[in-house]
Amino acid sequence: MSAYHPLTEQEAIDIARSLSDFFPQDAQLESREIGDGNLNLVFHISDPASGKSLIMKQALPYAKVVGESWPLTLDRARIESEALITEAKLAPGLVPQVYHYDAGLALTIMEDLSDHVIMRRGLMENGRYPKFASDISDFMAATLFYTSDLGLNQQEKKRKVGQFINPELCKITEDLIFDDPYADSPNNNFEAAIADEARALQTDAQLHLEVALLRQKFLTEAQALLHGDLHTGSIFITPESTKVIDPEFAFFGPIGFDVGAVIANFLLNYAGQEHWSEADAREDYREYLLGSIVDIWEQFEQKFRKHWNDYGVDRLANSTPGYQDIYMKRLLQDTIGFAGCKMVRRIVGLSHVADIDKIPDDAKREKAQRLALGIGKSLIKLNRHAESIQELVNVVRKGHGGQ
Amino acid sequence: MSAYHPLTEQEAIDIARSLSDFFPQDAQLESREIGDGNLNLVFHISDPASGKSLIMKQALPYAKVVGESWPLTLDRARIESEALITEAKLAPGLVPQVYHYDAGLALTIMEDLSDHVIMRRGLMENGRYPKFASDISDFMAATLFYTSDLGLNQQEKKRKVGQFINPELCKITEDLIFDDPYADSPNNNFEAAIADEARALQTDAQLHLEVALLRQKFLTEAQALLHGDLHTGSIFITPESTKVIDPEFAFFGPIGFDVGAVIANFLLNYAGQEHWSEADAREDYREYLLGSIVDIWEQFEQKFRKHWNDYGVDRLANSTPGYQDIYMKRLLQDTIGFAGCKMVRRIVGLSHVADIDKIPDDAKREKAQRLALGIGKSLIKLNRHAESIQELVNVVRKGHGGQ
Repeated sequence: MSAYHPLTEQEAIDIARSLSDFFPQDAQLESREIGDGNLNLVFHISDPASGKSLIMKQALPYAKVVGESWPLTLDRARIESEALITEAKLAPGLVPQVYHYDAGLALTIMEDLSDHVIMRRGLMENGRYPKFASDISDFMAATLFYTSDLGLNQQEKKRKVGQFINPELCKITEDLIFDDPYADSPNNNFEAAIADEARALQTDAQLHLEVALLRQKFLTEAQALLHGDLHTGSIFITPESTKVIDPEFAFFGPIGFDVGAVIANFLLNYAGQEHWSEADAREDYREYLLGSIVDIWEQFEQKFRKHWNDYGVDRLANSTPGYQDIYMKRLLQDTIGFAGCKMVRRIVGLSHVADIDKIPDDAKREKAQRLALGIGKSLIKLNRHAESIQELVNVVRKGHGGQ
Repeated sequence: MSAYHPLTEQEAIDIARSLSDFFPQDAQLESREIGDGNLNLVFHISDPASGKSLIMKQALPYAKVVGESWPLTLDRARIESEALITEAKLAPGLVPQVYHYDAGLALTIMEDLSDHVIMRRGLMENGRYPKFASDISDFMAATLFYTSDLGLNQQEKKRKVGQFINPELCKITEDLIFDDPYADSPNNNFEAAIADEARALQTDAQLHLEVALLRQKFLTEAQALLHGDLHTGSIFITPESTKVIDPEFAFFGPIGFDVGAVIANFLLNYAGQEHWSEADAREDYREYLLGSIVDIWEQFEQKFRKHWNDYGVDRLANSTPGYQDIYMKRLLQDTIGFAGCKMVRRIVGLSHVADIDKIPDDAKREKAQRLALGIGKSLIKLNRHAESIQELVNVVRKGHGGQ
C-alpha cells in the first residue's frame, strides 16, 4: 500500500479509521505510542465512546538495545504477521487476532490485549495463573507438532521452512545467547559483584562443549516453526486468559528452544524471589513456580504425544515402536539445555530480565544472579544426560551450579 | 528467454549456435539425444570439424521410473544449475563447467565429458581409479564444509537454505529410500528369490527404529548443501579425472548422506563381484573396493578437519576442545547409517543398480542381493554405535547381516 516511513500518531489514526467496520464511522479516535522504541513502534488506538480499541505494530528499520543501534530489515514484520496467522489457526484464542497486515509499511494491525498484563510483571508481583500451564502447553504442543514433519506434510513443511528463513533475528540469538556470554565480548553486561562468575564462564571447557552442541542444533535442526523468543515478556496473561505475542524471531528450529524459553523465564523469576521478609512465603511461591514448570513440561509432553497418536502424518514415525519415546526424551534434553543457555545470558549477557535486575538490594540481587547462573550452568551440563523432568527439579532444589 | 517446451534436436542446435564464441561461426553442428528420458532430455552437440562439443540438459516436467510417471516442477533445473555453479567454485575441476542456464527452458548448457565413463560402468568392468579417493574426498570436504555453518557465514547459509528448498526431489528420497523398503509398498521391486528377505524387512523393529531416526535427520538437519544423489552413476571418471554431475537433488541436509552414498555404491559393486572364475581375483578386486572406501572416509575426514582448522568461521566450534571430535564421529555414524539405507533400497526398492541386476546367473545374482542386503542392514543397525570406519570394514568382511 504505502511506501515505508515510520508512522506519526495521526497517520496511525487515519489508517485505523480506514479499516472497514472496526470503529464506528464518527468515532473520535485516540492514539498512544506504547512501544519501547527498541525494535518497533506500537500504537494503541481506541474509541472511548464505543470502548473499541486495537494495536498497530510497525517494525523500525533498526534495533536499539542498551544504547546500541544496528540496522534490521523490515522482513521481520512479515515473519511476525505470518507466524501469528499460522499460530492463530493451530492454537485458536492463544494469540492476538491479526486484523490487517501492510507489507509496505511493515505494519500489523491486531487485537488489543490491554486487559492482560505482561506475564513477567505478573510473576514479579507474585501473581498465580491457574490456567497458564494448560494454555502454554496447548500453544506449544499444537504450534510445534503441526509445523513439524510429524504433523505436517513433509513437502509443505519444506516450503514453510523457506518462508520463515530469518537470518537477522536468528543472528541476535546466536550471538547473544550462544556466544557472547562465553567470551570476553563487548556485548556482555554484568555487575562487578559477579565478575568472578562471568570470567569463569569464559574458561569452562565442559560448558563450552555443551553450548556449542546446543548452538549447532539451533543452527541446523529445522524441527518445527518456533516462536523463537518465548519468554514471559512475550506473554500477555490474566488468570483466565493467555496470549502469546511478538513472534518476530520465528523460524524453523529445535522444539526444545521454545519449551526451554518458558521454563528458563520461570526459573529466572524463581531466582529473583528475594524480596520476601518471610522465608516460608518465598519458598511457597518458589514451589508454585517449580510446580508450574513440571506441569508445563508434563502437559506439553502428554499433548504433543496425543497429537502424534491421533494425527501423526509420518508413517514410519507413527508405527515404529520406541521412536516416539526417543523423540520425546531428546525434546526434554534439548529443553533443559536451552533453558540453561537462556538463564546464563540473562545474567551476564547484553539483555537482562527485570525479575532480577529490579531487586533494589545489592546483596539480594547478587544472590539471585549467582543462583540463576548456577542453575543455568547445571542445566546446560545436564542436558544430554537427562532422563526426566525431575532431574531439572533436583538441580533447582540443590540451588547451586558447578554440578 | 523462451517459454518452456521440450526442445527438438534442431532447436538444441540453434541454441548451441547462438552461444557466442563457443563454436566456429560456420560449424556444421550435430546433435544426439543421449538422455534416458526419465527426467531430462540430454543433447550432445558437437562440431566434428573443430572437435568442440557441449551438453544441453533440459528438465522434463515429469519423472518416469520403471514405467511410472509423475509430475515434477522444472525448478529442479534451477537447483541443479545453481548447485553446479556453487560446487564449481568450491571444488574447481571436479564438476562440469556451466556455460549457460536458461530458466524459461529449464535448460543447462555445460561441458561435454564424453571422454569420461560413468563410474558405475567403470567399476562393473573392474576398472581401478587411483585418483578417485583423493578427488571425491576433495569434492565432498570442500562442498560440504564451506556450505555448513562451520565454513560459511551463518546468515548467508540460511539464505542458501531458502534457495535450495527442494521438496519434490527430497520426497523421492524420503519415499524410495526411507519408507517403501520397510513397508508392503507397491513401489517395491524385488525378485521372488529373495521375497523372504524383503518380507523380513517389513517387520524388523530394530531396523525400523534406526531408519526412522536417520529419516528424521534427512528431514530436519540442514547441515550443508548436499549433492543429494551421489552414487557412482552421478560420477564421470577416467584414471586421471573425476567429475561429479547431476546435483538436481541438492538441498541442505545431513553431510553423512552424501558420504554414505559414495560408500554404499562401492559396497553394492562389492556385492556384485560374482562374475570372476577365480576367487582370488574376486577377493583382490573386493579388497581394492574396501580399501577405497576406507581411503575415501579417511581422506574426507582429514580434509574436512583441515578446512575447519584453517578456515573455520564459527568461533565456538573452532575454540571448543572436543567439539570437532564429536562432530566428526557423528558424521561417521551418519555416513554408515545412510550407506546402509542406500544399499537396502537398491535391492528391494523401486530403483536398482546395474552392478547387481546385470549379473546373468540367477544364483549368483541372488547371492549378491543377499550379501548387499545383509551388509546394508548391519550398517543401519551399527550407525549410532560406530566409533571408527574399521567397524564398517568388519561388517563387510563378516559378509552377512542380522548383526
